[in-house]
Amino acid sequence: MAPTTPRLVVPIDLKKKPSEQKVPLHNRWHPDIPAVVDVTEGEVFRVEMVDCNGGAVGDNDSALDIKATNLFIGHFLSGPIRVLDKKGVPAKPGDLLAVEICNLGPLPGSEWGYTASLDREHGGGFLTDHFPAATKAIWYFEGIYAHSPQIPGVRFPGISHPGVIGTAPSMELLNIWNERERELQENGHKSMTLIEVLHQRPFASLPTPEGCLLGKIEDGTPEWEKIAKEAARTVPGRENGGNCDIKNLSTGSKIYLPVFVDGANLSTGDMHFSQGDGEVSFCGAIEMDGFLELKCEIIRGGMHEYLTPMGPTPLHVNPIFEIGPIEPRFSEWLVFEGVSVDESGKQHYLDASVAFKRAVLNAINYISKFGYSREQVYLLLSACPCEGRISGIVDSPNACATLAIPTAIFDQDIRPKPGKVPVGPRVMRKPDVMKCTYDGNLPITKNLSARA
Amino acid sequence: MAPTTPRLVVPIDLKKKPSEQKVPLHNRWHPDIPAVVDVTEGEVFRVEMVDCNGGAVGDNDSALDIKATNLFIGHFLSGPIRVLDKKGVPAKPGDLLAVEICNLGPLPGSEWGYTASLDREHGGGFLTDHFPAATKAIWYFEGIYAHSPQIPGVRFPGISHPGVIGTAPSMELLNIWNERERELQENGHKSMTLIEVLHQRPFASLPTPEGCLLGKIEDGTPEWEKIAKEAARTVPGRENGGNCDIKNLSTGSKIYLPVFVDGANLSTGDMHFSQGDGEVSFCGAIEMDGFLELKCEIIRGGMHEYLTPMGPTPLHVNPIFEIGPIEPRFSEWLVFEGVSVDESGKQHYLDASVAFKRAVLNAINYISKFGYSREQVYLLLSACPCEGRISGIVDSPNACATLAIPTAIFDQDIRPKPGKVPVGPRVMRKPDVMKCTYDGNLPITKNLSARA
Amino acid sequence: MAPTTPRLVVPIDLKKKPSEQKVPLHNRWHPDIPAVVDVTEGEVFRVEMVDCNGGAVGDNDSALDIKATNLFIGHFLSGPIRVLDKKGVPAKPGDLLAVEICNLGPLPGSEWGYTASLDREHGGGFLTDHFPAATKAIWYFEGIYAHSPQIPGVRFPGISHPGVIGTAPSMELLNIWNERERELQENGHKSMTLIEVLHQRPFASLPTPEGCLLGKIEDGTPEWEKIAKEAARTVPGRENGGNCDIKNLSTGSKIYLPVFVDGANLSTGDMHFSQGDGEVSFCGAIEMDGFLELKCEIIRGGMHEYLTPMGPTPLHVNPIFEIGPIEPRFSEWLVFEGVSVDESGKQHYLDASVAFKRAVLNAINYISKFGYSREQVYLLLSACPCEGRISGIVDSPNACATLAIPTAIFDQDIRPKPGKVPVGPRVMRKPDVMKCTYDGNLPITKNLSARA
Amino acid sequence: MAPTTPRLVVPIDLKKKPSEQKVPLHNRWHPDIPAVVDVTEGEVFRVEMVDCNGGAVGDNDSALDIKATNLFIGHFLSGPIRVLDKKGVPAKPGDLLAVEICNLGPLPGSEWGYTASLDREHGGGFLTDHFPAATKAIWYFEGIYAHSPQIPGVRFPGISHPGVIGTAPSMELLNIWNERERELQENGHKSMTLIEVLHQRPFASLPTPEGCLLGKIEDGTPEWEKIAKEAARTVPGRENGGNCDIKNLSTGSKIYLPVFVDGANLSTGDMHFSQGDGEVSFCGAIEMDGFLELKCEIIRGGMHEYLTPMGPTPLHVNPIFEIGPIEPRFSEWLVFEGVSVDESGKQHYLDASVAFKRAVLNAINYISKFGYSREQVYLLLSACPCEGRISGIVDSPNACATLAIPTAIFDQDIRPKPGKVPVGPRVMRKPDVMKCTYDGNLPITKNLSARA
Repeated sequence: MAPTTPRLVVPIDLKKKPSEQKVPLHNRWHPDIPAVVDVTEGEVFRVEMVDCNGGAVGDNDSALDIKATNLFIGHFLSGPIRVLDKKGVPAKPGDLLAVEICNLGPLPGSEWGYTASLDREHGGGFLTDHFPAATKAIWYFEGIYAHSPQIPGVRFPGISHPGVIGTAPSMELLNIWNERERELQENGHKSMTLIEVLHQRPFASLPTPEGCLLGKIEDGTPEWEKIAKEAARTVPGRENGGNCDIKNLSTGSKIYLPVFVDGANLSTGDMHFSQGDGEVSFCGAIEMDGFLELKCEIIRGGMHEYLTPMGPTPLHVNPIFEIGPIEPRFSEWLVFEGVSVDESGKQHYLDASVAFKRAVLNAINYISKFGYSREQVYLLLSACPCEGRISGIVDSPNACATLAIPTAIFDQDIRPKPGKVPVGPRVMRKPDVMKCTYDGNLPITKNLSARA
Repeated sequence: MAPTTPRLVVPIDLKKKPSEQKVPLHNRWHPDIPAVVDVTEGEVFRVEMVDCNGGAVGDNDSALDIKATNLFIGHFLSGPIRVLDKKGVPAKPGDLLAVEICNLGPLPGSEWGYTASLDREHGGGFLTDHFPAATKAIWYFEGIYAHSPQIPGVRFPGISHPGVIGTAPSMELLNIWNERERELQENGHKSMTLIEVLHQRPFASLPTPEGCLLGKIEDGTPEWEKIAKEAARTVPGRENGGNCDIKNLSTGSKIYLPVFVDGANLSTGDMHFSQGDGEVSFCGAIEMDGFLELKCEIIRGGMHEYLTPMGPTPLHVNPIFEIGPIEPRFSEWLVFEGVSVDESGKQHYLDASVAFKRAVLNAINYISKFGYSREQVYLLLSACPCEGRISGIVDSPNACATLAIPTAIFDQDIRPKPGKVPVGPRVMRKPDVMKCTYDGNLPITKNLSARA
Repeated sequence: MAPTTPRLVVPIDLKKKPSEQKVPLHNRWHPDIPAVVDVTEGEVFRVEMVDCNGGAVGDNDSALDIKATNLFIGHFLSGPIRVLDKKGVPAKPGDLLAVEICNLGPLPGSEWGYTASLDREHGGGFLTDHFPAATKAIWYFEGIYAHSPQIPGVRFPGISHPGVIGTAPSMELLNIWNERERELQENGHKSMTLIEVLHQRPFASLPTPEGCLLGKIEDGTPEWEKIAKEAARTVPGRENGGNCDIKNLSTGSKIYLPVFVDGANLSTGDMHFSQGDGEVSFCGAIEMDGFLELKCEIIRGGMHEYLTPMGPTPLHVNPIFEIGPIEPRFSEWLVFEGVSVDESGKQHYLDASVAFKRAVLNAINYISKFGYSREQVYLLLSACPCEGRISGIVDSPNACATLAIPTAIFDQDIRPKPGKVPVGPRVMRKPDVMKCTYDGNLPITKNLSARA
Repeated sequence: MAPTTPRLVVPIDLKKKPSEQKVPLHNRWHPDIPAVVDVTEGEVFRVEMVDCNGGAVGDNDSALDIKATNLFIGHFLSGPIRVLDKKGVPAKPGDLLAVEICNLGPLPGSEWGYTASLDREHGGGFLTDHFPAATKAIWYFEGIYAHSPQIPGVRFPGISHPGVIGTAPSMELLNIWNERERELQENGHKSMTLIEVLHQRPFASLPTPEGCLLGKIEDGTPEWEKIAKEAARTVPGRENGGNCDIKNLSTGSKIYLPVFVDGANLSTGDMHFSQGDGEVSFCGAIEMDGFLELKCEIIRGGMHEYLTPMGPTPLHVNPIFEIGPIEPRFSEWLVFEGVSVDESGKQHYLDASVAFKRAVLNAINYISKFGYSREQVYLLLSACPCEGRISGIVDSPNACATLAIPTAIFDQDIRPKPGKVPVGPRVMRKPDVMKCTYDGNLPITKNLSARA
């Protein structure tokens, strides 16, 4: 009796480019990008999505397509979706939009994905000072499991999720974003000493018409020109949600998004079959074409009722969410610690980013002893369901961060053994991930204590 | 047949001061603090410990004892414990010491603890710019559960653990610590712009004879004088483990500590009945007197075999550990997000500490809507088993951190409700945590968008 | 590169009857039912299935279709599927067939199911002496969640699984089945005193041509006549797997089935969106049209290597399986106990079936206090992910069985409260499940101590 | 301020016999056994307990003490404990007593236990027709973990719990018990055909003065004589709880017991460090001396409010309980199935006990292939945290039961492997469990299809 089959509101034809889809996609945040469809609260609807690079990266034998990746392009988002209540009244600014993820997965017919680290000149990754070259691994899906020909001996169930999900910003919010990110871009080098350790990568990605895709806004029109110059890039997560890359936004979870414009104008994309906390190699989830089945509820006035702004304006809020009940169940974890002392031995002050970098480096070095190249482990830790924790943030000067890896994803026992070296049935180092050369001149961070 | 009752190697008499215990305690890291006992690998032994403040904080009606807390004193550690193999040969530098936590708990007869935020002049906490005053809450234990008269409506099972567990540093490692922390202390203001947002608190706690307790080293001797001037303070976690405040080092976990001196010289203390990731209010776990039952194994050469140093010397390593199988099981979590934009609206670059600060502030503001003072929630989130995650660390300029709170710890439903405000059966704001006045002059961070 | 999209080997057209499907279905076990397709080990393939009643039960307002249900018909199975190794050699008797469930779900376009109890004259259910009438509830799916208009206030994630999955029996095994079940049918009344308490229902369902569907075997041929008379009914699980109704055979699980005929001839059907342990109301899972994505491996000789027969022949074995990693996660359970004393107060000897009956009755009576009819709870406990345990089987004369119900599936707190009766916001008793009259003459088991 | 250290209400001195303890023990259920102590609701109190056999079984090299075990003696219970509300009014018949298990464990100084199967003539076990001899294994505890010198290669965390916990019966309830069990004892052979398969053991254990221990009732008095003849034995669980042997009654759980006499008169004993569902070898948990820390609440009238009697009287009820949050966490399970066909090949009707017997036999035979004797596995499956499920109870004639074993308890991978036999690093069969001879004449069930 009840119509329970989800209505397909954004279809994807994988034979077509992102810019040629029947329901047009977009890759910027702007209040004036028109909604492509209306949905009603309570209704279950289906949204299909291209992968974050819109098909530019292939299931092939080379990382050259990754090296060529243009950060100006992605993420391609499906939407905006205008949300109405049962009487047909749109969500209003100040409401809270509760979005339940009823179901999700790879797009049928496209059961594969990739994990990559970008070339340092094109965006790099969390450890790009250690790994400056573009690398790539392909993953194939067998239902809930992923495995990669380039990273043998590993198989795991994914916690699939959209990397990007968010509402449209209002013009006021958009201006806040553009202003603060421009300030960082222009003055960051002067004011930030984090530069030395973490700033190996672009400070920000400011608005630019280059590669801009604006949904129903026709290319070349004055409207397009105006919006393209203003519209926020999709790289960082912000007040509206967006590219938060939270791996736990999976099936059964419920996301409470603030509403800034009439209709909420929900957009989503960048589907991940799996991702580790941090997504360290940047293009580091298992990127795939995918679909979401969603159900929305409008909590009238809920943004004001539940979210307390913190900052100069009432728009300075963040989403909240509930985790769903069917995440994979692991019982054994091997955990790596890091404190806020950098690779040169310099002491930093309660810097969780530095501490986490150390934890990830420790994990890469450890696991590579079991027959893997360090590049394999870098991509693996980006893609598998590992947990990155801020364990201690008050014991000055050292923040303590941890990275927990479920041991069941390996086909060998990777725990330290009393009185034994990890010899025996090791995975062979060949095959390896696909790598490009790094042609730049930036210095690579050396491990000063590495044994010859 | 087998002797399975753990041998008590460090007893605590709670009627005596830390400096008067039969087996002397210590509160510094130094290679020359002599071991107080030998244990053999495979043997299960019991270590008792005073709370981090050595009994200076009482189960009473006032936070004045917290306000008076002297950071120079704690943590009081039990040990050092020298570890021998079955042939009687001590652990050697370069070995890995696997320490299994067989059992732990409050010290029988002392089934209570406290959570506190320090006065900003005496150490503060993660949010001391928001909460500069000393506050305190008492927790009573009923087996695995804790509840507080000052934070009604909340009860939770603890993930008990030692805040501090580590091996003794070698002289070389100690010198590295003292040098890098002194450098930060002296030059941090110049080189670190994190100062503006996070640096509300001391950069570091350098060696000082003040309040120094050195175990078997007799006070007043030349040896005491020398060591007291060199010995590292216990505040931060470092290469030897130490005060990492990792809440998952609980029953059944196994910690792999690098060995830097003959015998390993294991010390431990600062027992926590429970703690949230981050331990945000600083004295923020449920601090208690407690015991550990431990079993050690020596992995000969394991430090070199398994840990890859990263830094200027081979001593730049970090411990790893396995999580035990009986952590409390929660199924529903409400999660708060934060990005690296500070309270003034300023954009920071991939700063996980700033992002986590925002997530914690968001959680405090949210939960306080359900009938709590913000101070109650600050202490609650320090103490309860919440999870702090680094969700995204690559989407420049915003790091995304999350704080996940198990909803089952509340006696009311704290989730947002469609079409409803959280009225109804609320917990009363009275009682509240115990608070002192803040008598300092440092500015308090205001929420610029707070409604009048 | 790799073909990862599952190959559809058995399609279902829901507009057609079971007997009209392009790839023919079957509803009996017999070695001579020919395979409809070949698959190769390692290949991921997709099997679609009609619901256990082949579409005879509708999404409508009445339970009359349930009352009319003819046990002679179901279960309609998809298959047999012949499994070959990578060289094209079929699985052989004595091998073990490892079947991994890579993915499963409702058939797209049919996102609903039903739970029912049969009329006592037509098969009844575990409690048919208490609930003799046909009843029905409809469930609608929203991704991983199910909810029913007839059982308000309840919503839960399903542990979806095939009720039936098994290999074809050899002729020798089929003869064993038919002989032992006929013996029970003919002599059960004499030899079994369980009759008085549990035998409210048919002893067995012996072979009969009535309603027989034999895949590629053409109706009316001599071959059909012969097979129809011999072929085992699908009601019970047996040595080949079959209708075991094990709710944990869900995504990611791996089933090791013994092989009795060349090619293994795997068949499957009776998809359940969700089911409680025991499936107490008989047609008690959430029955649905569904699909499986499977991957097979042949363990040559594995039946002999791993399974030890127990009984008069080497064919007396049972399957084993591994549970998958993504079952829903619940943390709070309310558990009901039952011992082997029946409703009349009579003591039985270590009878786990009687003990479980009591546990289920206790649960039904308890939950009905919270605003539900007993019929609603009977169907709910059949359908929701509750766990039925044999807790004690040795403390003569009482077996102790338990039924554990995850409390999170209810929108109210169903735990007992000190000093309070469960008043307050109750779910209304209307609507109720759809019910038919019971027109038979068999006595209904009364609760002798029920209050007037 | 609050008194949180549990008050010790029943101390045990392990150097004394059960009959010599300062606070007298008892081993029968009877309303006239006087309470030994009063507790108040809300108070946390500590109860110590001897093991089920009261010290008669030792940590030694022989199973002779098991062979000599006299079923007339155990279980030795601590209590009865009279429960009062905060005004001093005792619990009344018709109330519900909510008992929270705040903490539990082995008795300090006695960190060991044993698992045994009794000689068939003295009580046997679930599989006594297969294993008629007395056997024994010793377990040593290392915190949460147990390991046995007799069953090498296995180590697991226990889900510790009291085997027996219950309230005193009223005289009316006691009479019901004695009558129905006597009826079974006297007429069971005539009316029960389960005899042939499962009835290898005593039907019931009727009241007898032999070995009777009655707490404060002085031996030899007329009162003692009267009570001893009437008092129910502790072997089976019944309406009052009692020896239910439910492994999930562990730390943090809450048991709702019906109250039949003034003061409730709670008794408990038979502490288990760990037990598998079913406790198949009978003395099959890891039996130990232990303690409980409990907190009681009285739900006035709660027995009538929450429990619906089912049977001839209002006393025919059963307890309910909530599971605690810190049970060990396992993620991988290997599961064995059984259907209700017995070892001779005979078909039984929906008999969950027979089905479970087959599942257990299948598991024993399987695991013994990995280097263990069948007796080792029999004791192991009694003692380790395996789960026994009633998976299907309606698919006549076969009930389907499953036994799920957490694979992480083994130091080898026990899963079936494609194309490989389980050779390689096997555990050696020596040592083995301690065994006695079986001197009786009863036939042993043979496996008719066992290979020579």
